[in-house]
Amino acid sequence: SCRNYSKIGIIGAPFDKGQRKEGAALGPSFLRQAGLVKHLEGIGCDVHDFGDIDFQPSQEDETVKNVRNMKNVIAFNEKLSQKVSKIINEGRMCLTLGGDHSIGVGTVHGHLKAQPETSLLWVDAHADINTPATSNSGNAHGMPLSFHIKELTEYQPELPGFQWHSPMISARNIAFIGLRDVEPYERLIIEKLGMCALSMEEVHGIGIKEAVKYALSRIDPRNTRHLHVSFDIDALDPLEAPSTGTPVRGGLTLREGTELLRSVHRTGRLSAVDIVEVNPLLGSASDLKITLDAARHLAAAAAGYYPGGWAPKGITDIPQS
Amino acid sequence: SCRNYSKIGIIGAPFDKGQRKEGAALGPSFLRQAGLVKHLEGIGCDVHDFGDIDFQPSQEDETVKNVRNMKNVIAFNEKLSQKVSKIINEGRMCLTLGGDHSIGVGTVHGHLKAQPETSLLWVDAHADINTPATSNSGNAHGMPLSFHIKELTEYQPELPGFQWHSPMISARNIAFIGLRDVEPYERLIIEKLGMCALSMEEVHGIGIKEAVKYALSRIDPRNTRHLHVSFDIDALDPLEAPSTGTPVRGGLTLREGTELLRSVHRTGRLSAVDIVEVNPLLGSASDLKITLDAARHLAAAAAGYYPGGWAPKGITDIPQS
Amino acid sequence: SCRNYSKIGIIGAPFDKGQRKEGAALGPSFLRQAGLVKHLEGIGCDVHDFGDIDFQPSQEDETVKNVRNMKNVIAFNEKLSQKVSKIINEGRMCLTLGGDHSIGVGTVHGHLKAQPETSLLWVDAHADINTPATSNSGNAHGMPLSFHIKELTEYQPELPGFQWHSPMISARNIAFIGLRDVEPYERLIIEKLGMCALSMEEVHGIGIKEAVKYALSRIDPRNTRHLHVSFDIDALDPLEAPSTGTPVRGGLTLREGTELLRSVHRTGRLSAVDIVEVNPLLGSASDLKITLDAARHLAAAAAGYYPGGWAPKGITDIPQS
Ligand SMILES: [Mn+2]
Ligand SMILES: [Mn+2]
Ligand SMILES: [Mn+2]
Ligand SMILES: [Mn+2]
Ligand SMILES: [Mn+2]
Ligand SMILES: [Mn+2]
Repeated sequence: SCRNYSKIGIIGAPFDKGQRKEGAALGPSFLRQAGLVKHLEGIGCDVHDFGDIDFQPSQEDETVKNVRNMKNVIAFNEKLSQKVSKIINEGRMCLTLGGDHSIGVGTVHGHLKAQPETSLLWVDAHADINTPATSNSGNAHGMPLSFHIKELTEYQPELPGFQWHSPMISARNIAFIGLRDVEPYERLIIEKLGMCALSMEEVHGIGIKEAVKYALSRIDPRNTRHLHVSFDIDALDPLEAPSTGTPVRGGLTLREGTELLRSVHRTGRLSAVDIVEVNPLLGSASDLKITLDAARHLAAAAAGYYPGGWAPKGITDIPQS
Repeated sequence: SCRNYSKIGIIGAPFDKGQRKEGAALGPSFLRQAGLVKHLEGIGCDVHDFGDIDFQPSQEDETVKNVRNMKNVIAFNEKLSQKVSKIINEGRMCLTLGGDHSIGVGTVHGHLKAQPETSLLWVDAHADINTPATSNSGNAHGMPLSFHIKELTEYQPELPGFQWHSPMISARNIAFIGLRDVEPYERLIIEKLGMCALSMEEVHGIGIKEAVKYALSRIDPRNTRHLHVSFDIDALDPLEAPSTGTPVRGGLTLREGTELLRSVHRTGRLSAVDIVEVNPLLGSASDLKITLDAARHLAAAAAGYYPGGWAPKGITDIPQS
Repeated sequence: SCRNYSKIGIIGAPFDKGQRKEGAALGPSFLRQAGLVKHLEGIGCDVHDFGDIDFQPSQEDETVKNVRNMKNVIAFNEKLSQKVSKIINEGRMCLTLGGDHSIGVGTVHGHLKAQPETSLLWVDAHADINTPATSNSGNAHGMPLSFHIKELTEYQPELPGFQWHSPMISARNIAFIGLRDVEPYERLIIEKLGMCALSMEEVHGIGIKEAVKYALSRIDPRNTRHLHVSFDIDALDPLEAPSTGTPVRGGLTLREGTELLRSVHRTGRLSAVDIVEVNPLLGSASDLKITLDAARHLAAAAAGYYPGGWAPKGITDIPQS
């Protein structure tokens, strides 16, 4: 399903109440304006843009069981999950444009509903695996993974309105790539669950290609599962993608990020990708341009873009002048 | 001919009518002002600066057979070709400072006239191999390679005033390094002619050193041919060289660029280098400084600069205080 | 002595009379304000900040035997040396925050006094090994190494007030990493003394991990010696750490810098680190932020920071909600 062609469904997830900086909700519109959709079409993809999740945040919201803006986080992600399921069921790779990473609650859930045999690559400077009980900040964008993991079921509080959601993936089917700012309790969870966690040290040591290969061998040992890549733009180094809320130096180069996504694309089993935490309100105009550009290249790589190019379909002769 | 010494002839090619953004014609003067010539002298090269090509662009110009500014492109390059031949015949490595990449029409032709047994490394984000018939833009900076390739002779239109030029190199003696934005017809040509094309994926995968080694083994299998490197500054990543007209993310680091040029220098057969597409009118002052600095380091690497340094010639004792 | 724990003593060396640009003396205060100390505590280090060297520069100073500001250079470093010895004798890794690199006179001497069996990694774009007789500039920040090397004793002038200092390390116990701007006489010294000098070409060729391994095998072949890393921030590429006085493109990435320091930390024998040549008066506000951030990450790496994180000490169960 590679070679100059990919069926892609795009969904915008303009939500930023999973953390405290306004702006990430503007991600989808800025990414579209920067030409992300056109770029995918230009490289030969069959793109359907399903627009943004239609959502009016409730003004009355609060922190419940240490989840800030709980009501909105849950309501937004319920809608998003349904949409993601629908797009995947239509046979398109679902590309979700965040929003902060709390939208990973909906994207991963929606994917797992449509395709229960799915493995997940979490590409991020952060592990985002806090339970509400271990979180220092109460920010939902630091928790999405914990909600999905079956082995953590007993550690989760009951959250009102969250009945539509249940953990649907085992920790053994999740891998991290790009970690470099992991909180102690997050590390504890990773170790207790024996998760595959490739920090920047491992990525630097073995190279991004080997890192992806190893991670996939751990979370999809028979090469049979659908794959979901949840790509936090802060996995990239802040020099390569500065406009994001919680930058940490020492990250992936854009080349490593695109290599990662292209590698996963080439399995033929990549069925959902999130690109999150682009915050257009942070940094200079030049920073923003660099960040939007990086996101566009990530999207193209997820669609299988090969930098060497492709010959036009069906044409075999060089045109005469 | 290495070791702290290189005989270099510099020629400025202040021409930017091969594309639509003004500014690249200012490249030579800005590069000189940034100390490129002095820097080469400082690392021990024997430099002769032959100044700029003396050229008054004709105001009456037009697009002929889909070549914009055809008259000026052809006239400028005729002069440039002669100059390059002359410098190479004097036994100096000819370093041409662009100018947009349409000046590759003159540099490569001039080199081939002086040394027909020459192979060519095209280091660029783009393939620049459109014929006038396949070009979408009509910009000559996207066509220079096509004019030089013998195998494309029959696909070329006759251009008035271009009789001084003829294709003088086989596609088998040309390799690309750094590609990441190749148009479909360009790819078709590359494939039909079986050319060696190392995109950023291949460079990232095997490393720049192996990439150069492989490319040279393809285009110069007996290690006998003269070598020409036409280095488009946009082969570098825009973070490393931002002031250029058609930047594409995901490019070479400056370290990879210098490694490439130093490797070719060490063959002892590098006889011409172009550094093109520096556009001093693009980007911030800081962007420009970074770009000029990058170009200076590329020039030094082409001259064989070794970052570990060289002891002073003829002195074997540490001075007493 | 690794694993989420390091006993560190910090000393500020606010001195910039070893070269001509004001500002490096502000390094310690800006680094502290940027949270370097808190960051080390946050990753679990036992940090004692010993404050800055208390020093009033003499206004009457001059160039003696081609050492500019000789009196101040010598007086400052005498104080610094004593402080470094004291911190190391207390069993803490001594982290010295420069200041320009002339403070390496004091840090290395103080270390060697406390631990004579010490080897030295000089991580720098420059070799800083000029004797007063070979220096073009008279800047002491280009000379510190020469003062320490036993084999150079006979090439040194007598400097008034410098009797407290004597060369205490053999050239065979010193290695360079990151060189890319080495003066001819410096190279002569390196070659005459047979020193291990890994320029950016070697680092790029074999990778930073192998480079460190090789350098340590040369300067500490039995894995028995204490180690001192004197890290000039200009070893990093100017894109990664722009606010410094003598930037040279083509340097280490921050990832390579942290990898280097973490590798040395893991020997268990790293007992002193200098981070020097951060100049808060150079570059834009954004440049400064990037530079301070880089220095903070270097300090953490020297303290053994692992980007994959550590579980909380003494806790083995995931908290219930
Ligand atoms: Mn995240
Ligand atoms: Mn993150
Ligand atoms: Mn070009
Ligand atoms: Mn180009
Ligand atoms: Mn230094
Ligand atoms: Mn330096």
